[in-house]
Amino acid sequence: MHHTPASAEMTACIQACLDCYRHCQHTALTHCLEVGGEHIEPSHFRLMMDCAEICRSSAAMMINGSPYHADTCRLCAQICRDCAESCRAIGDMDECVRACELCAESCEAMAAQTGKSGSHAGSELSAARPQ
Amino acid sequence: MHHTPASAEMTACIQACLDCYRHCQHTALTHCLEVGGEHIEPSHFRLMMDCAEICRSSAAMMINGSPYHADTCRLCAQICRDCAESCRAIGDMDECVRACELCAESCEAMAAQTGKSGSHAGSELSAARPQ
Amino acid sequence: MHHTPASAEMTACIQACLDCYRHCQHTALTHCLEVGGEHIEPSHFRLMMDCAEICRSSAAMMINGSPYHADTCRLCAQICRDCAESCRAIGDMDECVRACELCAESCEAMAAQTGKSGSHAGSELSAARPQ
Amino acid sequence: MHHTPASAEMTACIQACLDCYRHCQHTALTHCLEVGGEHIEPSHFRLMMDCAEICRSSAAMMINGSPYHADTCRLCAQICRDCAESCRAIGDMDECVRACELCAESCEAMAAQTGKSGSHAGSELSAARPQ
Repeated sequence: MHHTPASAEMTACIQACLDCYRHCQHTALTHCLEVGGEHIEPSHFRLMMDCAEICRSSAAMMINGSPYHADTCRLCAQICRDCAESCRAIGDMDECVRACELCAESCEAMAAQTGKSGSHAGSELSAARPQ
Repeated sequence: MHHTPASAEMTACIQACLDCYRHCQHTALTHCLEVGGEHIEPSHFRLMMDCAEICRSSAAMMINGSPYHADTCRLCAQICRDCAESCRAIGDMDECVRACELCAESCEAMAAQTGKSGSHAGSELSAARPQ
Repeated sequence: MHHTPASAEMTACIQACLDCYRHCQHTALTHCLEVGGEHIEPSHFRLMMDCAEICRSSAAMMINGSPYHADTCRLCAQICRDCAESCRAIGDMDECVRACELCAESCEAMAAQTGKSGSHAGSELSAARPQ
Repeated sequence: MHHTPASAEMTACIQACLDCYRHCQHTALTHCLEVGGEHIEPSHFRLMMDCAEICRSSAAMMINGSPYHADTCRLCAQICRDCAESCRAIGDMDECVRACELCAESCEAMAAQTGKSGSHAGSELSAARPQ
């Protein structure tokens, strides 16, 4: 019945997700909109918003203590990788690139750690949790 | 470059996700807290909150016009199925069960439809994930 | 201690907020980005995103059964009015304008109704705020 | 047209909001659910969830560069004060109390700073911003 507190690694991953959410959302809605050009090319701009949304949600699942967090971390890592690549190709968004890469690494580590059991999500994972 | 407007099917799926978010979040924070007992058993209660969170985020990805929506739909469907089962086992949460099942069906259809096209996000991810 | 179920009026207001969130977020990230020009003028575009965010949060507070919902409804109504005006001035966003206006009306009615009772949150805050 | 970057003070306020969101949401869904008793008394538990929601949204408005952030900061500060009081009365939630108080102070400072112009929200504030 006792709750296992979030590990130091998970706390760092939550922070990496929230940082990446902050950088992508803020950069898109200020820098990108103001600079224009490639920065507001729809598929790039939407990718930044998708990245912000999944980072916010990936953080939320870990904060909730959810057994599904490996799935949201895995998807978050992929979208962060894609977003980092798109930002790097356009240039002048170094902080975003760095935040995306740190978040991707941290989420990949969380997903791998939890995914060792080979489980997809809920039921198997919850069997592995302290009750 | 032109935007394809959300299909009628996607609009219905967004609504199903938002309905399920509303039912799970509201039922947990009112009915479950007030009734107590099994309704606030931590793993059940957290499952309702996880379901609310992923439904909110799955809706967001479709609303954003995101190419990753098949992935969030697929995960949303699974969490909804688990939540429906947990609510059914406890009983007296028929509206939640129904909202979860409708959302799961709708999200499964969206994920299947998008995955077929071999699009940007869905297919690679799903191929790489343990089933 | 017993929970009063959400009234029909509150359920309609939740739906109006979620509809407005959906229209503003989707229109900004598809139509506005693709049309360009005035549609992506930073202060207009950010207003649409602010409107989406406050609608999502105003819905959340009602769904949570929060005693603070009158405050979030009041702020939501104001941002929706501003967003409707900005969309009307640019043109070709009739669905957004309509969704914003319906949400503003519904939120104003909720805020007025709750404020009357001198409840927990609403009245003190509104008394303290510049009108 | 140039964007004024978020001030150091605003960046700190965003972080305080995200920290408070994390502590309230996590503590409610793990510690409170597992300890039970007063910790899951509905009005206390919902207050923690309301606090988490408004902190998440207050952070979002600042991240978006929104001219309405003074309003969300003001409301966030009030809910954080109420939540800190409720957590202190129950006891054994010192980290939550501290996160709520830090967030309240930071949000009050942001609201006061922006509110100097006496404006309520959108139009007046945006007139005061660099375009």
